[in-house]
Amino acid sequence: MRRWNGWGDDTFNLTLPSDGHQFLSERIGAGQPLDDATLESVCAKVPRSRLPEDPAIDGLIDTGAETRVRHARGQSLADWLAMRSGDFGVFPDGVATPSTGAEVRQLLQYASRHNLHLIPYGGGTSVAGHINPVELDRPILTVSLSAMNRLLDLDPDSQIATFGAGTPGPLVESQLRAHGYTLGHFPQSFELSTVGGWVASRSSGQQSLRYGRIEQLFAGGTVETLKGTLQIPTIPASSAGPDIREIILGSEGRLGLITEVKVRISPLPDRESFHVVFFPSWSQARTACRKLVQNRTQLSMLRLSNAVETETQLALAGHPRLIGMLESFLSLRGTGDGKCMMTFGLTGSRHQCRSALRDARRICAEYKGVYTGTRLGAKWAEKRFTMPYLREALWQLGYAVDTLETATDWDNVDNLLGRIEDSLRTGLADRQESTHVFTHLSHFYGQGCSIYTTYVYRVADTYEETLARWQALKHQTSEVIVHNGGTISHQHGVGKDHAPYLPVEKGELGMMALRSLCKSFDPDALLNPQTLVD
Amino acid sequence: MRRWNGWGDDTFNLTLPSDGHQFLSERIGAGQPLDDATLESVCAKVPRSRLPEDPAIDGLIDTGAETRVRHARGQSLADWLAMRSGDFGVFPDGVATPSTGAEVRQLLQYASRHNLHLIPYGGGTSVAGHINPVELDRPILTVSLSAMNRLLDLDPDSQIATFGAGTPGPLVESQLRAHGYTLGHFPQSFELSTVGGWVASRSSGQQSLRYGRIEQLFAGGTVETLKGTLQIPTIPASSAGPDIREIILGSEGRLGLITEVKVRISPLPDRESFHVVFFPSWSQARTACRKLVQNRTQLSMLRLSNAVETETQLALAGHPRLIGMLESFLSLRGTGDGKCMMTFGLTGSRHQCRSALRDARRICAEYKGVYTGTRLGAKWAEKRFTMPYLREALWQLGYAVDTLETATDWDNVDNLLGRIEDSLRTGLADRQESTHVFTHLSHFYGQGCSIYTTYVYRVADTYEETLARWQALKHQTSEVIVHNGGTISHQHGVGKDHAPYLPVEKGELGMMALRSLCKSFDPDALLNPQTLVD
Repeated sequence: MRRWNGWGDDTFNLTLPSDGHQFLSERIGAGQPLDDATLESVCAKVPRSRLPEDPAIDGLIDTGAETRVRHARGQSLADWLAMRSGDFGVFPDGVATPSTGAEVRQLLQYASRHNLHLIPYGGGTSVAGHINPVELDRPILTVSLSAMNRLLDLDPDSQIATFGAGTPGPLVESQLRAHGYTLGHFPQSFELSTVGGWVASRSSGQQSLRYGRIEQLFAGGTVETLKGTLQIPTIPASSAGPDIREIILGSEGRLGLITEVKVRISPLPDRESFHVVFFPSWSQARTACRKLVQNRTQLSMLRLSNAVETETQLALAGHPRLIGMLESFLSLRGTGDGKCMMTFGLTGSRHQCRSALRDARRICAEYKGVYTGTRLGAKWAEKRFTMPYLREALWQLGYAVDTLETATDWDNVDNLLGRIEDSLRTGLADRQESTHVFTHLSHFYGQGCSIYTTYVYRVADTYEETLARWQALKHQTSEVIVHNGGTISHQHGVGKDHAPYLPVEKGELGMMALRSLCKSFDPDALLNPQTLVD
Repeated sequence: MRRWNGWGDDTFNLTLPSDGHQFLSERIGAGQPLDDATLESVCAKVPRSRLPEDPAIDGLIDTGAETRVRHARGQSLADWLAMRSGDFGVFPDGVATPSTGAEVRQLLQYASRHNLHLIPYGGGTSVAGHINPVELDRPILTVSLSAMNRLLDLDPDSQIATFGAGTPGPLVESQLRAHGYTLGHFPQSFELSTVGGWVASRSSGQQSLRYGRIEQLFAGGTVETLKGTLQIPTIPASSAGPDIREIILGSEGRLGLITEVKVRISPLPDRESFHVVFFPSWSQARTACRKLVQNRTQLSMLRLSNAVETETQLALAGHPRLIGMLESFLSLRGTGDGKCMMTFGLTGSRHQCRSALRDARRICAEYKGVYTGTRLGAKWAEKRFTMPYLREALWQLGYAVDTLETATDWDNVDNLLGRIEDSLRTGLADRQESTHVFTHLSHFYGQGCSIYTTYVYRVADTYEETLARWQALKHQTSEVIVHNGGTISHQHGVGKDHAPYLPVEKGELGMMALRSLCKSFDPDALLNPQTLVD
């Protein structure tokens, strides 16, 4: 069953190898876990629902405590601390689970009639507070799209599939695979996040180099709004004014509820493989990545770990003997301390993969990359969705882990990356605490790339102090990002956590444009309050 | 010098070969040209400017008759008939040519102070009435960006170049070429259209398969609005809410004046070549195109002429002996009547081009395509920007020519194409006139493609009737497009001519969103009235 207070299914646990534990302990000290609240104790805190009775929505809404607990938080570290401490603050007053667009329209009318807030809920995987209810005068109804999870149509000529917006990643792929297709959208939250959530939050998947971000995959669909139903037709490309798709992408529930999503699909590829190359230095490795993408080499994924991430991943891999052998081999080839690991994916016809591999190896070799084949790449592919389970394993050892991510132009990557890591590394110094910080680049464009930084710090004696540490790191580093040419989010969205930093990036007029859109679709500000824009 | 009443430079003329003339005459009858108005006679009709004196804009505005004539119309066939007849209707009250953002801001303040309409003017190449002044109570000031035509910055790492918005295609490419780069944006209007105009109207270039549409090339920039300056930062990709770039793309001067454009550039390619393949039938040719693009074969351009366009192009090519030999060769290979010509481009490294050529030939061969090498492709490349001059040549012979274009999903291409051609072919039947109609597909996506249809009809005895014929064809066929799953424009934009058909495509709520954006940036509706939305 899905964990009520953490990530994923409770039958799956990731165990940290003992030398991994030691590795962390040497760097930031021994951890001491805090006690977890029980589900029962949290349910006991859930107040009476404020939702008004209304025959029109009979049977659509569950006001039971456990359901409300299970839909009260996402997966940010602040959410995690709330769930672990049991100190949730606000719960939704009920959770509706409509099965049809007509039921969603009924719920919108219900919200309108009674002046309620309404929060659309996909997979509940937000790490930026998108679906968290906030303390407000009006009652709050969370609308889960989980019952709208089917493949509704597939057009093989135009390669367009229509899904219910609540379809989670595995059901998207399995329903397509039965017909010989793939969407190819693999965010790390893939196991739980939904196609509607991807659109609402502008997500990006690990193989975006081939398949594109959700912006490139989203072809149209249906959005139920307080002003009526918005149908976005599928048109391959158009110069007929600003694109309405682009207004819905990233709208985070502020304009309406996405109920049907039409996506651009691809035939299942003939071949797919993942390859690992080690570089002697960051500068060589980063330049090789830039050259690969600017050369339009047909890779399907690319990821570059910096030296600390490379060292950390090898230490946590749990195969000391094998890793030892690898290290000796790399040392012999001149790739020792400070080495950086690149993983790249090839997807397509045999001919395309062979041609791209040749290009990739040539470019990597120019920057002294040591190609090690597909063995480590296969490991990456095997574990590509298990990283979020690591938080659970670390938590048990008394460590908190979180990530920050952004994107910037190539000429600013090193500058911004350095500032982000510095901010996180020194951010708890006044509390006499250290953090362990490492970074990878994982989404690549001719113009620049994403920067994805992970940090681990020790859980404090209390939940309050543990949260305060997170708040300090998050706030300070978010300021660093937006004041140094980064976007406040490349793939996680704005939600409530990033909303304070958005105006620096969008500017006063950009914010005015977003507010005017919200105002026109939702003049009474009923939908997902305090998300995206205040 | 640039023609005041037609396309391009008046030192360049395209001559129709005599058998081309005969070809048309056999199909739609002999033409009889109408008399052209002189520039002097038109200048004499220009009324006194209604612009108020204002010391703040001293020297920025030209109210001379010829300047106002030269900025009164674009290049739609309706514009052409207005310019040829001298019956312009409305002229702008003056033309400003600012050199800096500060001067643009002064002009906006001037417009605001005196309640004037303001029309941004790039290359004046609109074929949808974007820059035409309309009869309104308030005076109209056209603002030409032509003095802002320089490369302002080039970042080789991030491959981003900054241009003044008024930089026309040839100056974009020549300034980049000096540094070893290309933008790769080649709309047919390339010789005259500007980078700011491309953004404002969401244009697409002939090599969009490699370089993308202007949406993919536009990285950010500066827009001067009535509410202040909107700076759009360059970020490779972001999930930080709806993308402000996408709100400016296609805004057609309704939100502000684009003054600086940052574009994503590419190093000049090692190789470039264009290849021609003939297919025995439309169905085989169209399927080969779909397969090529869905296979992600790295082509830089792709164009498929239907049988009538193929026949027409060969007839108008003016090399009867050479074409005769080609026809014999193709006939022997089973590709005779009804054959369709495909042109594809390869751009990139030697290795990439070779690999893509191999893929392309294999896929074409599966659909019985006869590959003829690069000779005809080189001809296409040589003449790629000269098609608009054909209107002049046909006009002298008494024929009017225009195009309609759209895009749709693959499963609808044949249906929509057939309906568009039928509508144009039979649209003048009640006037006892015929049209010659042919089509190509020229922008390709996994999901579908553009449809670009050309039609030629005889000029009538009067300008009024000639215009009425155009209006009948345009209106009827635009209705066919939007009611049969096409966009009202894939690459020309909305302007005033397509605005009546936009609501079918965008829907009531889509139109509401666009209007709310216009309202927030321009509450008094001063900017480019009746363009995009009414």
